[in-house]
Amino acid sequence: MDPNIYQNEYFSSYDDLEVHRLMLEDHPRTLAYKNAIMNNKSYFKDKIVMDVGCGTGILSIFCAQAGAKKVYAVEASNVGNLAREIIKENKFEDVIEVIHGNVEDIILPDNIKVDAIVSEWMGFYLLHEGMLDSILIARDKFLKVNGEMFPESATIYISPCSVPSLYKNWEDCHGVTMTSMAKQLRASKYNKPEIMIIKEEDILGFEEVPLCWINLKEDTISEVDSFSIEHVVGAKKDGMYQGLCLWFDCVFPDLTKKNENVRLDTGPDSPPTHWKQTVILLPEEQLVEVGDPIAFQLDMTRDAINRRRYNIQVSLLDPDEAEHPLPCTCDLTKCLLIKAYMQQHPEPASKTEQMETNCLQEDPIDDDDV
Amino acid sequence: MDPNIYQNEYFSSYDDLEVHRLMLEDHPRTLAYKNAIMNNKSYFKDKIVMDVGCGTGILSIFCAQAGAKKVYAVEASNVGNLAREIIKENKFEDVIEVIHGNVEDIILPDNIKVDAIVSEWMGFYLLHEGMLDSILIARDKFLKVNGEMFPESATIYISPCSVPSLYKNWEDCHGVTMTSMAKQLRASKYNKPEIMIIKEEDILGFEEVPLCWINLKEDTISEVDSFSIEHVVGAKKDGMYQGLCLWFDCVFPDLTKKNENVRLDTGPDSPPTHWKQTVILLPEEQLVEVGDPIAFQLDMTRDAINRRRYNIQVSLLDPDEAEHPLPCTCDLTKCLLIKAYMQQHPEPASKTEQMETNCLQEDPIDDDDV
Repeated sequence: MDPNIYQNEYFSSYDDLEVHRLMLEDHPRTLAYKNAIMNNKSYFKDKIVMDVGCGTGILSIFCAQAGAKKVYAVEASNVGNLAREIIKENKFEDVIEVIHGNVEDIILPDNIKVDAIVSEWMGFYLLHEGMLDSILIARDKFLKVNGEMFPESATIYISPCSVPSLYKNWEDCHGVTMTSMAKQLRASKYNKPEIMIIKEEDILGFEEVPLCWINLKEDTISEVDSFSIEHVVGAKKDGMYQGLCLWFDCVFPDLTKKNENVRLDTGPDSPPTHWKQTVILLPEEQLVEVGDPIAFQLDMTRDAINRRRYNIQVSLLDPDEAEHPLPCTCDLTKCLLIKAYMQQHPEPASKTEQMETNCLQEDPIDDDDV
Repeated sequence: MDPNIYQNEYFSSYDDLEVHRLMLEDHPRTLAYKNAIMNNKSYFKDKIVMDVGCGTGILSIFCAQAGAKKVYAVEASNVGNLAREIIKENKFEDVIEVIHGNVEDIILPDNIKVDAIVSEWMGFYLLHEGMLDSILIARDKFLKVNGEMFPESATIYISPCSVPSLYKNWEDCHGVTMTSMAKQLRASKYNKPEIMIIKEEDILGFEEVPLCWINLKEDTISEVDSFSIEHVVGAKKDGMYQGLCLWFDCVFPDLTKKNENVRLDTGPDSPPTHWKQTVILLPEEQLVEVGDPIAFQLDMTRDAINRRRYNIQVSLLDPDEAEHPLPCTCDLTKCLLIKAYMQQHPEPASKTEQMETNCLQEDPIDDDDV
């Protein structure tokens, strides 16, 4: 199969204005970029910036407003023409240059290098669409040594959750029980992740479990080919365990060291964004009680044919056999004892670091879809 | 062109469970039916009811809960199988009989007639999808003389409005002017009505203008072929006149005479429903000041080929030449004088009735889409 098929589909979907509208009207998203850029005005002054996949050009304009001397706004789809108009409307046509093409193919005059790369490349559960590759290629091709990436890091989180909109809500729909409806709805959703809003109250895990931490300044494309985690988390309350909820956050640099790093968080306890959350629905729901260990393995791996797509595979593990983290949030006697011991003998940080390293496994894994 | 093409498309789209989910989760909609039926419990007791286009069967179940002796739940799509399961789940399989077929084709045993027809047939701007025809056919085929229709009437309303989401909101998008974006967005929307939420504050007309009042108990199919109105309405405030907003309401019978009639209102001043509002965007926006006359003609007429589709044509009229209603809400001197005179010499009701009659024109009109 010709991978270019996917490439073309990918770019033509971006011509749809409504997609850009959705993104611009996603205020937590747009505002995070604006704040991240404006908080670093003293850094952006007179810098050369590249905006990869500029869309309507709003991030390029933020950079120009922050004082950038030159912005290369790279856009492969025809929306680049609209970006040119919007840039002119904002009187930045002398600062921002729209370049029509894939960032992989374009060249800059005099092989110029840029001080910073700004890009909104995140898809559902961070990696859907696989635009990250283009960002890493752009970095290696165009970013100066010690240049800055906006955002500079991203993390995918996982937590067990209830999914009332596919279960409980249908037990009483205005006085009518509709569990057959719910069953049929769920049946249509087992073979792919569902993009939906999960409320904070439906999160069951004591803690959010990081699947991976991506360092935009250093990671290579092969390092984002696959991620895998095996984990045990305690239930923070009684509830029905019906799915695994995935979300991500992105952190932007704070180069002035005056402000906190701006963080764009798409989790259930933050204002909703167009990314919502992603849910991997379990084939069977399970009743869990507070403190119960929930053990799972999640593998996310790039599709061999469509490299812009990731396959996600979830395995439910037996908590008695799975390896529990140190300390563990579950209430199994051994974990309670270890926790009590660790509280009496504090030994900071090292365990957390170890866990993060474990997340970045590169071993090949099954690429079956869920 | 074969009209069956549209017929098949029409029914297959209903197989999509997400559509039924959307409708069930539309609480103002579902609750209006529930209240309309439950408020008339004494009427429904031991009655025979038909639910036309029963979908998941919830309205049939409401009728059974209200005491109906028999409900024929007619559904042309495969969702009827799900309805059977849901009915069983609610233990009404002895009361409710799902009949798979078009209401136009089915026959009831012993040519039985029903006491009431319940149906949720309304589409965007009431008539989109054209399911009303099937309801009127079912009425003529199956309803007893003096039987009841739920709902029993429906009205389409029009008002001039502002559309900030396609104009003003783009003048300052987080500090960036994006009027080129807005222009391109609008360009994609001139050739068909746009389904969107209009806020009450964006309604410009002093009053909502009824395009048509449909009497479900009496009107014939040819009476709903086309509607036309020529009207002048005063602006209730200064604002940008950018579109005509259409919405509808439905009124249910109050057979106990104890309660008020339940009314399902999809207007901008009611809680939003999945029908939202429908906007016909004007080619050019106009500044209006409070009291300014806004004159327009709106024709809604059934498509000659796809009878489930209506074409809408709007003409902006010169307020000096258009005929103003009596009394008129605009501030032109003649209308202010007439209003003052009428307030001094009250003569109730007759003018309003005349206007409603005018709305039901049956003259053939151009069927160009807007």
